[in-house]
Amino acid sequence: VSTSPGLDTTTVDLDTVIAAASAAAPALAATPPAQRRELLVAIADALDVAAEELVPVAQRESHLTEERLRGELSRTTFQLRLHGDTVAVGAGWPAGGRPDLRRVLVPVGPVLVFAASNFPFAFSVAGGDTAAALAAGAPVVLKAHPGHPELSARTAAIITDALAAHGAPHATFAIIYGERAGRDALLDPRIEAGAFTGSPHGGRALADLAAGRERPIPFYAEMGSVNPVFVTPAAAAARAREIATGYVDSFLLGAGQFCTKPGLLFVPASHREAVLDAAAAAVRERGAAPLLTGAIAAAHARSRSALCSHPGIRAIVGDGDSAGSGGYPDCPPPVLLATELTTLLDDVEAIAAECFGPTSIVVSYRDTGDLHAALGVFTGELSATVHGESDEPLAAELVTAVARFAGRVIWNGWSTGVAVSHAQHHGGPYPAATGVFTSVGTTSIRRFLRPVAYQNVPDALLPAPLRDDNPWGLSRRINH
Amino acid sequence: VSTSPGLDTTTVDLDTVIAAASAAAPALAATPPAQRRELLVAIADALDVAAEELVPVAQRESHLTEERLRGELSRTTFQLRLHGDTVAVGAGWPAGGRPDLRRVLVPVGPVLVFAASNFPFAFSVAGGDTAAALAAGAPVVLKAHPGHPELSARTAAIITDALAAHGAPHATFAIIYGERAGRDALLDPRIEAGAFTGSPHGGRALADLAAGRERPIPFYAEMGSVNPVFVTPAAAAARAREIATGYVDSFLLGAGQFCTKPGLLFVPASHREAVLDAAAAAVRERGAAPLLTGAIAAAHARSRSALCSHPGIRAIVGDGDSAGSGGYPDCPPPVLLATELTTLLDDVEAIAAECFGPTSIVVSYRDTGDLHAALGVFTGELSATVHGESDEPLAAELVTAVARFAGRVIWNGWSTGVAVSHAQHHGGPYPAATGVFTSVGTTSIRRFLRPVAYQNVPDALLPAPLRDDNPWGLSRRINH
Repeated sequence: VSTSPGLDTTTVDLDTVIAAASAAAPALAATPPAQRRELLVAIADALDVAAEELVPVAQRESHLTEERLRGELSRTTFQLRLHGDTVAVGAGWPAGGRPDLRRVLVPVGPVLVFAASNFPFAFSVAGGDTAAALAAGAPVVLKAHPGHPELSARTAAIITDALAAHGAPHATFAIIYGERAGRDALLDPRIEAGAFTGSPHGGRALADLAAGRERPIPFYAEMGSVNPVFVTPAAAAARAREIATGYVDSFLLGAGQFCTKPGLLFVPASHREAVLDAAAAAVRERGAAPLLTGAIAAAHARSRSALCSHPGIRAIVGDGDSAGSGGYPDCPPPVLLATELTTLLDDVEAIAAECFGPTSIVVSYRDTGDLHAALGVFTGELSATVHGESDEPLAAELVTAVARFAGRVIWNGWSTGVAVSHAQHHGGPYPAATGVFTSVGTTSIRRFLRPVAYQNVPDALLPAPLRDDNPWGLSRRINH
Repeated sequence: VSTSPGLDTTTVDLDTVIAAASAAAPALAATPPAQRRELLVAIADALDVAAEELVPVAQRESHLTEERLRGELSRTTFQLRLHGDTVAVGAGWPAGGRPDLRRVLVPVGPVLVFAASNFPFAFSVAGGDTAAALAAGAPVVLKAHPGHPELSARTAAIITDALAAHGAPHATFAIIYGERAGRDALLDPRIEAGAFTGSPHGGRALADLAAGRERPIPFYAEMGSVNPVFVTPAAAAARAREIATGYVDSFLLGAGQFCTKPGLLFVPASHREAVLDAAAAAVRERGAAPLLTGAIAAAHARSRSALCSHPGIRAIVGDGDSAGSGGYPDCPPPVLLATELTTLLDDVEAIAAECFGPTSIVVSYRDTGDLHAALGVFTGELSATVHGESDEPLAAELVTAVARFAGRVIWNGWSTGVAVSHAQHHGGPYPAATGVFTSVGTTSIRRFLRPVAYQNVPDALLPAPLRDDNPWGLSRRINH
């Protein structure tokens, strides 16, 4: 099978890839967790060894900085090892009952992963979805993002070599290229689940394909967010400048190309000028940074122009004409916008929409009644942030209220930066994500597992996690 | 709001019902688990008290026996109490990390439950989906099954009274009637999840509606199954008669109207006659039993006629003409059919399809190579059963193989009877179910919960399950 970066996978090659992944599924499912951990650690080790080779390719293809990419690669290999540890300590969950009933989570089978562009390591070929599917014991067919074809191919080769060297079943991992191949794979009856990180438009189109199959499959899309930030009057009075600079640092991280970028900062009108002055100064200190791909640059230019030409929105730093060079790589200077809550409420669809790139809007509110109206605007967000004082009744109200639509609630901090841990939740009601699972952190593994209950099956015929002697030493719940 | 049994809920009433459920959601979500358990126990107690009133109504409307219905009601109230216990001991799941990150499962919001006809208690108004959603803290809008309108209305009234008497938020539970109201409710943006037990046709149609919404919601459909049974040559040699009578008892339970009814029994050709003779004798001892509804009787008559007129299928007991009286209640006598594996493999779609009612097919196979071909027929089943000898290599192979498509694997037993317990899994790959969750047992509660992570939120502002002092005394994972 050809894996030339940039060359679309042919229909014939795709069939070969999926047939092999399908054939690999039972063998991979049968690997003990300790061996599965070994495979994940092998991939992590091999990626770390190749850092000097990979990071320059990633820089060239993504226009991100060396420092950012080195950090991201470390996070990526940490994630692979953590997922390995997680399955090695507790994948089974039997419990007694009448009749003898023992339940275990088994891999769903071949998983199709759509890589993202904005994290060339952490949400791409060796990213969270790949780590989770392999940890679950499911073969991965990875649809590469066109934004970094060479890095994708090289990362895939490292994964494939590491898996082969450690005795993984043939075709545990494969990479495919091209939008058509991705769609065809999603419709292939041998694919059992899909995972995606990207735009709401792309995610919904793929989710619809998955749901419309003759045999529908779970499709886990993480589709970005506005990530609203609510600043209370007390917090604004105590630290307007600190909040303003923290906001600018956060929304300009990665040139504003984080799915957790704060797109709206709600501030009391009483402190609007203080916040805007400090934020404007911070934005002016920043230079223009290149965007990841031509498509992202074009989309950003379009949505930014629309915001800048909106009659109710003022440009505080930059304007619609500064959207970029038009060439590629496109390096648009950052833009800070401002509006009033009443304007936003009159045109929610235009103003409270994600603008992926270095643009964000400060929204001022008159009183806390207005704030409650603002809360009603959001239905599904990856995160919501509250800046407040802990003895302030409004702060408690806000923390409770934002949890109704957000997957993660942040206090006096910033939404960019998503720790990979057991307690993480990176998801949220639609349109932040589809389904009730996280795409970051160890419980993301659960997406690629399904339960099987065994009733009165003799010990010798049970799968290892359910045998009385617990040969894999898993954590289990028994008789409770 | 009118809740007259049999009268379809109007559009205006439906809006009132859903608005109220939506308003109830935050209050119900805020109830401590101990209180939620109290509500569930109150419903269970009230139903038990009303048994003498409810069971006769259920008999009249469902044509099931008093004994069966008394048992089913006990299971139903046990389930309510068990789900209450489950949430009271461990709904939260925080774990440490950097930054301070604490994760909790919160209710999704109003859940629309479609009741089934074949278990007027256990999968209807107070059934598993209602118990799971209330245990999760989600208001329930229950779409009644037209097969037992009076029992549905009475059960709903008992639930509503029990909830009110124990301080549940207003509109924690509501009942609606009619197919149109059910569809309209599923499309209502205030409904956050759906659950269904019934036919693949109906389940898929509703799942497509849920997936096609502007804001798609999770839809958990449990859609029935063929529940194949595989008898090895050694098991057939050891106990052909016992297996045959067990099979007949199982497939005729509830007049064959269980989603776990064994629809296909695979036996070695060498023991075909012994199995068929014993099974035929057992079937002949059974009388005709009334089916649940006219629609089910008509559907059964159609699919049974098609099987009986299939050139490769022989009627061992009964035939196509014995499909029923044509009147209602329709009491078709049981029918036992037989065919060969090669015939089945030539026409999988016609023969390996669920025939809901008192009809089942014995399929004989020549050798174990044939059996492997038979295994390839199934993609998603609620259960698969193996009758074998534990030291037989074929038995071990079968147990492993059937777990690839079945949600529950049964050894030397029968698939009818689904224990409500922590370890149960009643689901399976599509078309047995949509999604990766069970619809029976305590983990079914997870369907109506979504995670929220709290980052660096002060203790006083955290929801109770995440506070350092753990005021609700939940089981939690911390720092691991």
